[in-house]
Amino acid sequence: MLTFIATHRKFALTAQKTLTQTFVPSPTGTARQSWLCMHQVYWPKECSTRSPMAHTLLEQEIHSQPDTIRAVLSQSAHTAAVAARIITHDPYAVFIAARGTSDNAARYAQYLFGMMLQLPVGLATPSLTTLYGVALRFRQALVLGISQSGRSPDICEYVASARRQSALTVAITNKPESPLAQAAAYHLDITAGIEQSVAATKTYTNQLATIALLTGHLAGDGRLLDALDELPDVLAGVLAIPQATIDAAAQLIATGSAAMSIGRGLQYATALEAALKIKELSGLPVEGYSSADVLHGPVTTVERHFPVMLSGDTGVSHHDTAQLIERVRAAGARIVVASSSRDHYSAADVALPIPVCDERLAPIATIVAWQRVAAATAASRGRDANAPIGLNKVTETR
Amino acid sequence: MLTFIATHRKFALTAQKTLTQTFVPSPTGTARQSWLCMHQVYWPKECSTRSPMAHTLLEQEIHSQPDTIRAVLSQSAHTAAVAARIITHDPYAVFIAARGTSDNAARYAQYLFGMMLQLPVGLATPSLTTLYGVALRFRQALVLGISQSGRSPDICEYVASARRQSALTVAITNKPESPLAQAAAYHLDITAGIEQSVAATKTYTNQLATIALLTGHLAGDGRLLDALDELPDVLAGVLAIPQATIDAAAQLIATGSAAMSIGRGLQYATALEAALKIKELSGLPVEGYSSADVLHGPVTTVERHFPVMLSGDTGVSHHDTAQLIERVRAAGARIVVASSSRDHYSAADVALPIPVCDERLAPIATIVAWQRVAAATAASRGRDANAPIGLNKVTETR
Repeated sequence: MLTFIATHRKFALTAQKTLTQTFVPSPTGTARQSWLCMHQVYWPKECSTRSPMAHTLLEQEIHSQPDTIRAVLSQSAHTAAVAARIITHDPYAVFIAARGTSDNAARYAQYLFGMMLQLPVGLATPSLTTLYGVALRFRQALVLGISQSGRSPDICEYVASARRQSALTVAITNKPESPLAQAAAYHLDITAGIEQSVAATKTYTNQLATIALLTGHLAGDGRLLDALDELPDVLAGVLAIPQATIDAAAQLIATGSAAMSIGRGLQYATALEAALKIKELSGLPVEGYSSADVLHGPVTTVERHFPVMLSGDTGVSHHDTAQLIERVRAAGARIVVASSSRDHYSAADVALPIPVCDERLAPIATIVAWQRVAAATAASRGRDANAPIGLNKVTETR
Repeated sequence: MLTFIATHRKFALTAQKTLTQTFVPSPTGTARQSWLCMHQVYWPKECSTRSPMAHTLLEQEIHSQPDTIRAVLSQSAHTAAVAARIITHDPYAVFIAARGTSDNAARYAQYLFGMMLQLPVGLATPSLTTLYGVALRFRQALVLGISQSGRSPDICEYVASARRQSALTVAITNKPESPLAQAAAYHLDITAGIEQSVAATKTYTNQLATIALLTGHLAGDGRLLDALDELPDVLAGVLAIPQATIDAAAQLIATGSAAMSIGRGLQYATALEAALKIKELSGLPVEGYSSADVLHGPVTTVERHFPVMLSGDTGVSHHDTAQLIERVRAAGARIVVASSSRDHYSAADVALPIPVCDERLAPIATIVAWQRVAAATAASRGRDANAPIGLNKVTETR
């Protein structure tokens, strides 16, 4: 039985209908989860988006995301003004400097800017500036620096170097007073509030939402902006996935000595971030791949019972993701799927049902499920998710 | 005792001197390799670059690299002509489409073009073209397609789409008659000869040498071109690393259930390719990182006895690599180092000594050591290195 909790009754009922149609009993059956059958919808009036199980700091931050994502929308006017400035600048291409979680947000921007604006986007190699002392000739490119803390020296130097030339520079940070925000000509505040957990969760989803908001304004795409308005409810839907399902996914992953995380197109960013989150929190080696790259070699590491995490949705990458699932299943993998697509479920050992939403925002919803799985995997391995071994909140690489 | 075999007596003697100065007895001693002491130099007149141990097809191809790399130099005049055409075009940036091993060659180009030409380089996301149907607006960019077979449909489509606009397109392949060579305005033949093993070895080093040759002509850097002339001897030096050392490295890696491969700057490409090679051939999950990124989370997966593969050299990344070695050693890792730097050895459990060469070419020499380790790791896990499970020579992703 699946218990579904939502912030709006309408959403819960729609979800019930969608999920009932989606979840068919598994054809092979035996080893599958038994929860793919839904009888009840809860719509507790008193239920906040903070689950009662959100007892750790990390879990509190994960569960705050419907609220924090809403704050991004309050930045719409300022973001529209920055977008107007970028349009005037008419950049030939975009280069984005970022590290760690922010680099996965940059990967999302690479696909979204490409899809919506036909702009070629390159992810920067900041060490060219800091290690080799090179001042890249950016001419009229748009150069973005993305950093939660705004304090990574290499990202700051890269952006400052670009600004000294004729590049238009924009910083995306959670700290308006940070060196990165100062280094860039323009600043977009992701307004995620203080993030106390070392592992980034709400800052990642707010970075993605900020990128989507900027893209919506750059492309003049009202549909994307409308979809952003509905995102808090979608995230609440992900937070309503029963903890038992999350735990089942975590157990499947934790039994392996390593795992693989795969996504295609926009969901490639999700695959990378899901892998990073599991690594950071539980210490398991998990590598993120695009489904195209996985066939160029890494597929050979998939053996019987090897845990594979798949991120998908109902968008255009749908068919490719379905084919990839078949391929890794044939290799004997055990599969956890986070997706809004029914086809992706039929081959999953554990399914994390993501409410259907605009495919351009699906990565924001999907990662929330993996954040929960990462926290549960850490718990099952006896790790303190609030203080991952060997990590600091601000990683100052040069 | 180290036996050193070289194609030129002068090189063998220089290597003897360098290595004798470099290899000091390990200060902690006990668990280290005992071969760090050298008494003899062999310079067998009758010795071809093909080692008598090169019994598998893969090993034959690995050992043919001093010869195949020489063939790249025969392309110098044509490459200079393509370079002249690129200079006339005056591209604002470079975008490179590639998959798998070729993507690691693209990573090398990203650093080399940045260092030598101050050109921003982005690695392409071909799925934007093939999956989302987007025609990116390249304007006057330089767009490179890199593919051994020249038959990856997504790389061909990406390059063809760029050519339909005003981008200058260049294909780098081993097959002049391939669709990719036809799709691009210009073609650089890597002249590696037929590669029969599924795992790319000589095509990778020849791709890198072709990129270095092109960069040397673009930058008008005679020193780089001279260094390329000496590369065959450097590779012969890597092939002369005793098999017992290679096997010791393979055993260290194979005892783990996963491993990590790290390099900084130009050697980031080596780290990625070394990881891919071990994955392809032995099926072990190994992830490649830049040392900067590894500190943003993945360092938490390094536990006691976790195998870490480090690629370094005596160039500007030297200090950062040394610091990273300290960090992972402190975490309890067991470390295999492939480097030309003495500092990097002092903390290694197994050291793969790379002859000193121009730092811009060090990745070409360093990967040859890892190719040998990958073949040995496959053998120790009972895998057929000529036919990795689940892989084809041509991977046709769209």
